Amino acid sequence: MKIEIISTGDEIVTGQILDTNAHWLCQFLFQQGLQVTRLNTVADNLDDLVTLFTEASQRADLVFVNGGLGPTSDDLSAAAAAKAQNVALTLRQPWLDAMHAKYRQRQRKMPESNRKQALLPEGANIIDNPVGTACGIEFRFNQAQFYFTPGVPHEFKTMLSQIIWPDIAARLSLPPSKKQYKLNTFGLAESGIDRFINSITIPDHIHLGYRTASPEIEVKLVGQPDQELALLNQQIEQALGQYVFSKDAMSPAEKIQQLLLARQQTLALAESCTGGGIAAKLVAQAGSSAILLAGAVTYSNQAKIDMVGVAPEQIEQYGAVSEQVAVAMAHGVRAQAGSDYGLAVTGIAGPGGGSDEKPVGTVVFALNCAQGTYVQRLLIQHPQRNKIQAIAEMVSLDMLRRLLDGWPVFAEYDFIHTLSHELIPG
Amino acid sequence: MKIEIISTGDEIVTGQILDTNAHWLCQFLFQQGLQVTRLNTVADNLDDLVTLFTEASQRADLVFVNGGLGPTSDDLSAAAAAKAQNVALTLRQPWLDAMHAKYRQRQRKMPESNRKQALLPEGANIIDNPVGTACGIEFRFNQAQFYFTPGVPHEFKTMLSQIIWPDIAARLSLPPSKKQYKLNTFGLAESGIDRFINSITIPDHIHLGYRTASPEIEVKLVGQPDQELALLNQQIEQALGQYVFSKDAMSPAEKIQQLLLARQQTLALAESCTGGGIAAKLVAQAGSSAILLAGAVTYSNQAKIDMVGVAPEQIEQYGAVSEQVAVAMAHGVRAQAGSDYGLAVTGIAGPGGGSDEKPVGTVVFALNCAQGTYVQRLLIQHPQRNKIQAIAEMVSLDMLRRLLDGWPVFAEYDFIHTLSHELIPG
Repeated sequence: MKIEIISTGDEIVTGQILDTNAHWLCQFLFQQGLQVTRLNTVADNLDDLVTLFTEASQRADLVFVNGGLGPTSDDLSAAAAAKAQNVALTLRQPWLDAMHAKYRQRQRKMPESNRKQALLPEGANIIDNPVGTACGIEFRFNQAQFYFTPGVPHEFKTMLSQIIWPDIAARLSLPPSKKQYKLNTFGLAESGIDRFINSITIPDHIHLGYRTASPEIEVKLVGQPDQELALLNQQIEQALGQYVFSKDAMSPAEKIQQLLLARQQTLALAESCTGGGIAAKLVAQAGSSAILLAGAVTYSNQAKIDMVGVAPEQIEQYGAVSEQVAVAMAHGVRAQAGSDYGLAVTGIAGPGGGSDEKPVGTVVFALNCAQGTYVQRLLIQHPQRNKIQAIAEMVSLDMLRRLLDGWPVFAEYDFIHTLSHELIPG
Repeated sequence: MKIEIISTGDEIVTGQILDTNAHWLCQFLFQQGLQVTRLNTVADNLDDLVTLFTEASQRADLVFVNGGLGPTSDDLSAAAAAKAQNVALTLRQPWLDAMHAKYRQRQRKMPESNRKQALLPEGANIIDNPVGTACGIEFRFNQAQFYFTPGVPHEFKTMLSQIIWPDIAARLSLPPSKKQYKLNTFGLAESGIDRFINSITIPDHIHLGYRTASPEIEVKLVGQPDQELALLNQQIEQALGQYVFSKDAMSPAEKIQQLLLARQQTLALAESCTGGGIAAKLVAQAGSSAILLAGAVTYSNQAKIDMVGVAPEQIEQYGAVSEQVAVAMAHGVRAQAGSDYGLAVTGIAGPGGGSDEKPVGTVVFALNCAQGTYVQRLLIQHPQRNKIQAIAEMVSLDMLRRLLDGWPVFAEYDFIHTLSHELIPG
């Protein structure tokens, strides 16, 4: 079966956005056992769209068109679909009514310009959009079955997985879908992962891949049959051991929440150079109020003193980026919040603020709990401030994950230099 | 000029990797004043490659082919280029020698398989690769000039920017590079922006586009000549007025930092449902210590009481999501930090925790300053928790931006329902 994806939009061909929708669809179809034959992207240009739709209709069995269904004048997909097939655009009262209803539900009046979204090529069937106002359309044109979806990623994915795919699966006799297993690792580079698992033989019919979602790396197995895949995945998980943060695409925040919930334990945070980033990651997860009691963003020295009780003399004597201050922050925020764990980060994310003694990327982490305080000083060498912050956030969560999961709290990381580490009892 | 990019590789069409090379090249060319007409991606399949090369040779003036120049059997770009032109592959001794030299330099022996990388289509010219062993090639085929590059991002970008682009610039008489102007808006939907600016006539030679970076929308003008563009941009900026958050792709955090720095004023944050997200946005910006004195992540009721001095009776009587508690949070955090502004957010991000009286999406914002406290209750209707949080973060920053920029603090937002708003003096 020949499958094509057509992405539309000036913002793609001018490099303003990365076409993550097409990527997602390639992945989605691959998991169903189908491989995309060709990906095409053109700008918001009527003639180019008409040409491409016509070509694809003669070449492919299945064509997915993404984007260009919005209310503005550069949204041309419906018009091009009509012109390519030499049919008219007609007003679809049911969808116009549906749009009005969607707006009423949100207690707003539908702008007149949205009427355009109910002007659809004659003969095309409407595909419902449960999460937006742009409907999809589907029709047969020459040898191909076309499916059009709006470009808003959330709407696109919802419609594809919930409505369009079941429709396709019902029409076609599909190969058995492939299974996949995912391990989310933190702390190893790809070459490091290779080093750990290169003694495991992967047969040709199973695909092993890495996906870097910096600073994590996802290790993925895709193939058939499930039993063989599960066994291989187990072997890989054992080989990677303490570097596996979570499984099955569970986010770091979800994993931490799961671990703390299972123990009915709680956390408080004192963040300097990460500036609330760890807290925001955790709160992004529903139900986080059960595990995160408080977070202090103590970016200034005064906030370290006022909010988490660091002694001014400690900052003066050792500097804000020091083991002493990190320990005081972790201890202070835990005592104040009455939580089981206090986690503190203080460092130099750059680009300014570095010195010979404490270069940019120097970050001190402290994890305070009943047994004492785990404190370590790392050097995270990266030219970008936000990457240093992102890695510092993950190291913080990794310390807690390791402690809760029974692994050594201090790790040897592939791409981070450990300057010192210590467990201060009591 | 018609420009096409051809990306090759199973790993793209199966969704294993995102095609960041094509994205980079689109961006690179756009900055030189050129717009890519079409992006094509096919798997490592000889026939598909031959077909696509032939099509592109008849359609485009300039074709960039990326990937498939490696030593393995699925690297088929050179073979397909030869077959499409009906010429032979010939061994190029100079490149074979160059490869041997590269390996010697690294004190390694060249594997026999790399010999394949010196087998190139007759008539094609070699493009040097200063950072790898796969050379590029260039040739004319039908109406198009073709440039082939290896897929390794670092090699691809080096060859493109250092060797190929200067070659193209020398061969072609390029159009004067286009200018662009960007306005970052918050609070209007695309249809709302249309409503505000539809009386402004955009001539055909200037492109007006919207890019949704939810929850913001960027309004962009691209074209020539600069003077005309600047004037149009000014008209659009005036028409959009208070909804323009920043210009020239300046991030919201950078804008807030700029506004506060100009006034030498400072901010403190008390975040409940955004959980540190506002602080993290601000701290992502270097130099934020000058404007952000402290941030409290008061996700739990106890943290609201302990960290920012909300009275327990207020929470009991009015609930954690209430004007009274938001005002107390904003006041408390400002008093504690000694900042010029105290900004507080408390709300129900969902999916749980909603009620008839306070459904999911109910968020109360308070901005405390010398004049008093601006407080508003909004209903942010969105099925996703993280979107409600992202919108709440932007509304918070928008209140401050509006106050500092002299606009009304309370806005009519297109996609958010205002339930109440009030300025409490004193």
